[in-house]
Amino acid sequence: MAKSQYEYVKAFETAEKGLLNTWMVIRLDGHSFSKFCIQHDFEKPSDIRCIELMNHAARSVMKVFPEMVLAYGQSDEYSFIFPPKCNVYGRRKSKIVSTCASLFSSAFVFHWATYFPGSKLQHPPSFDGRMICYPTLHNMRDYLCWRQADCHINNLYNTVFWALVLKGGMEQKAAAESLKGTVSGDKHEILFTQFDINYSRLPEVYRKGTTLHWASEEETHVRTTNKAHQPSPDEGRILG
Amino acid sequence: MAKSQYEYVKAFETAEKGLLNTWMVIRLDGHSFSKFCIQHDFEKPSDIRCIELMNHAARSVMKVFPEMVLAYGQSDEYSFIFPPKCNVYGRRKSKIVSTCASLFSSAFVFHWATYFPGSKLQHPPSFDGRMICYPTLHNMRDYLCWRQADCHINNLYNTVFWALVLKGGMEQKAAAESLKGTVSGDKHEILFTQFDINYSRLPEVYRKGTTLHWASEEETHVRTTNKAHQPSPDEGRILG
Amino acid sequence: MAKSQYEYVKAFETAEKGLLNTWMVIRLDGHSFSKFCIQHDFEKPSDIRCIELMNHAARSVMKVFPEMVLAYGQSDEYSFIFPPKCNVYGRRKSKIVSTCASLFSSAFVFHWATYFPGSKLQHPPSFDGRMICYPTLHNMRDYLCWRQADCHINNLYNTVFWALVLKGGMEQKAAAESLKGTVSGDKHEILFTQFDINYSRLPEVYRKGTTLHWASEEETHVRTTNKAHQPSPDEGRILG
Amino acid sequence: MAKSQYEYVKAFETAEKGLLNTWMVIRLDGHSFSKFCIQHDFEKPSDIRCIELMNHAARSVMKVFPEMVLAYGQSDEYSFIFPPKCNVYGRRKSKIVSTCASLFSSAFVFHWATYFPGSKLQHPPSFDGRMICYPTLHNMRDYLCWRQADCHINNLYNTVFWALVLKGGMEQKAAAESLKGTVSGDKHEILFTQFDINYSRLPEVYRKGTTLHWASEEETHVRTTNKAHQPSPDEGRILG
Repeated sequence: MAKSQYEYVKAFETAEKGLLNTWMVIRLDGHSFSKFCIQHDFEKPSDIRCIELMNHAARSVMKVFPEMVLAYGQSDEYSFIFPPKCNVYGRRKSKIVSTCASLFSSAFVFHWATYFPGSKLQHPPSFDGRMICYPTLHNMRDYLCWRQADCHINNLYNTVFWALVLKGGMEQKAAAESLKGTVSGDKHEILFTQFDINYSRLPEVYRKGTTLHWASEEETHVRTTNKAHQPSPDEGRILG
Repeated sequence: MAKSQYEYVKAFETAEKGLLNTWMVIRLDGHSFSKFCIQHDFEKPSDIRCIELMNHAARSVMKVFPEMVLAYGQSDEYSFIFPPKCNVYGRRKSKIVSTCASLFSSAFVFHWATYFPGSKLQHPPSFDGRMICYPTLHNMRDYLCWRQADCHINNLYNTVFWALVLKGGMEQKAAAESLKGTVSGDKHEILFTQFDINYSRLPEVYRKGTTLHWASEEETHVRTTNKAHQPSPDEGRILG
Repeated sequence: MAKSQYEYVKAFETAEKGLLNTWMVIRLDGHSFSKFCIQHDFEKPSDIRCIELMNHAARSVMKVFPEMVLAYGQSDEYSFIFPPKCNVYGRRKSKIVSTCASLFSSAFVFHWATYFPGSKLQHPPSFDGRMICYPTLHNMRDYLCWRQADCHINNLYNTVFWALVLKGGMEQKAAAESLKGTVSGDKHEILFTQFDINYSRLPEVYRKGTTLHWASEEETHVRTTNKAHQPSPDEGRILG
Repeated sequence: MAKSQYEYVKAFETAEKGLLNTWMVIRLDGHSFSKFCIQHDFEKPSDIRCIELMNHAARSVMKVFPEMVLAYGQSDEYSFIFPPKCNVYGRRKSKIVSTCASLFSSAFVFHWATYFPGSKLQHPPSFDGRMICYPTLHNMRDYLCWRQADCHINNLYNTVFWALVLKGGMEQKAAAESLKGTVSGDKHEILFTQFDINYSRLPEVYRKGTTLHWASEEETHVRTTNKAHQPSPDEGRILG
């Protein structure tokens, strides 16, 4: 069984790379997480234990990749950001994306019991991943705004929906029907008048998602922030 | 925070695909596994508990992808094979590779305690992944032969090396030095004369790796084979 | 002006390759050829001078690439076929496609006066190109069948259309209107009863396009065939 | 011969695109131009007729692509630059690169007689092409500096080499030998002391190459500049 006669198959490998001098974003998405939430009795509209477990898994990823400048998570997704100058793994897409997906999933299972002490993990969950390259800081920031806007829209909807169901006693189908065509203002109004909830005062972790960045003093500790974006004249803080 | 003004960033996503009508192989490789073996006191030259845990994780992957026809594992790597007609996830490379890497890692951690009951997992392990496309069955088979030849060469070396160290009392450096320039026959000879080991009679799981395929009766149960493939009239031997 | 400080920009180059061991097809398409036909008073429905000029240009391409096994042309397009074992230019897509498009266009202009002695070329024409990889001979043959079916359908339509206009005295709009919803048999019937044309007896060069292959004796002379491919024991008919 | 049963082959086509919001450069290179120069008795070290023919062909390309902002030519190569916002042909690499190579080659042959009135074109020349994407204006400018530095280095060498051969009566081999290890200053010195040539006063078209840009008044006329770019407050000198 000589190895050499088969080694030609190695030449079929390809290695697509993220274009040099662009921001590389790796976004992971949970597979069938609606079902996963039901299987594990997650609290509605959001389960803080899952958010904190996701954040822990994301910190594990960042610690392996000190080149990362930021990570942003919301719902069942997490985005990791490498800066333009970064040359991690020669910028090979498959290597970077698969390693991030692997590490995140591995850490998610590893730390499960810490965040869900009374709840057994039913089966190994999975997250898919992709890499997107952005040539400018402007595009990069708009990506984060896009994901955060997604967080806002979904969280507002889910907050009203589950208030109607859990506190208002509506059937899920009826609740969904009653929200059709409503705009943001309508949903704030329903929450306030029917359930005495001031949406803007709900914890930011639900409304805005979570940003991870390095602690400035020593750069070895990943810090979690849930506060909203601040306006800035030119660039200032992206997420803060 | 209108979502629409940011949604243009979605257009930067690309989706490289495995060429239609080719075999798609996903190969996962353990990250820093030499260190991982030491950290967890793995038996030398191979730890059957780790092999069985890898096989279990691989079965978890195959159960999620019934389109897979075969998986082959050895050392800290596992290859999963999709047939040419398969259209899983539209054949998108990142989606397929990242999901396999994620599932495998997730299952590896999930089932750790079953195979290492007395040994605590020290940290979340990770596996990177890549996709390689092969146009013909001939190429596909040569790929498997390549990986199995790799298994054979490394396992023979490791078997002799650790016999010299653990049974022969040599220092690791001296053992490595003494094996420099030896060919396959020399190593068989050392094992036989110095340690009374007939290499060819060692269990196949070490010498040939593990093949997973569907049980033919019902196609829902993943079968593990460590024996060599049998010749079949139309294909000949895949692995020998 | 030191060169070295700028040379880093070279690293931004990428080189996508046609997958190893697959058939590589380069298809060139004329840019705005409907307009080009009108500008140069091409005969209707097809101008044999243009077909022969296209064939000459295609032979020029094949002579530069002795690895090519076949070329097929019809209408304003030409397909060039490299076999699976071919390693021309390391199989780099851009290099191969651009060279074929360049050579073909260059030769088209170079030989124009030979085929259009009385007609001045009004402006430089252009052809775009693409590479498509096919893993099997079956796929490769179906590609050629696809292009030849395209030739047949368009040529039959154009033959009837221009008979109605040039011999039947119809306005172009009325001719197009009268052919709406007609099937192949209807078009044959119109040609036969109204214009005494037996479509099946029209020269094959119009109905089937042109195939270029190497003369078997010496492999240095490109032969043009407009007849259908003959069956061969090992491959069967490529084009019918 | 139904078309539909073969149309599945169309799905094998792929369309790699230049990353959004990056500068797209198309560089064309002459194929075997050393030989082509000899076959057509080009003047040494540079033939102004060929430079002007190349410039004419490049203007033909720019007129077809009004989105282009600049083109730069030197030796047997030409680079065409599309700005980040450009969406020409959906930014498909093969389509853009092949069309540029085709048009340039086609125009080169078309206008040959104008620039070489007494010299018959021996055979159709060809140019290959590639696309390179640059994320920032800084990278884009360094690309142009890189090509212009290449022009400078080669032209200085060729000027001295051919002075030694044509005016100094040296054999080509001896001339090449005598220049080994010389730096820029040495070559200036040889030109000045042996041949009374002040290199810096030679026409810029040889020393710096040719830049094409749109005339600012009306944007429909391509202007040729061989002079150095002027500094501008926000960008500085692109080429010097």
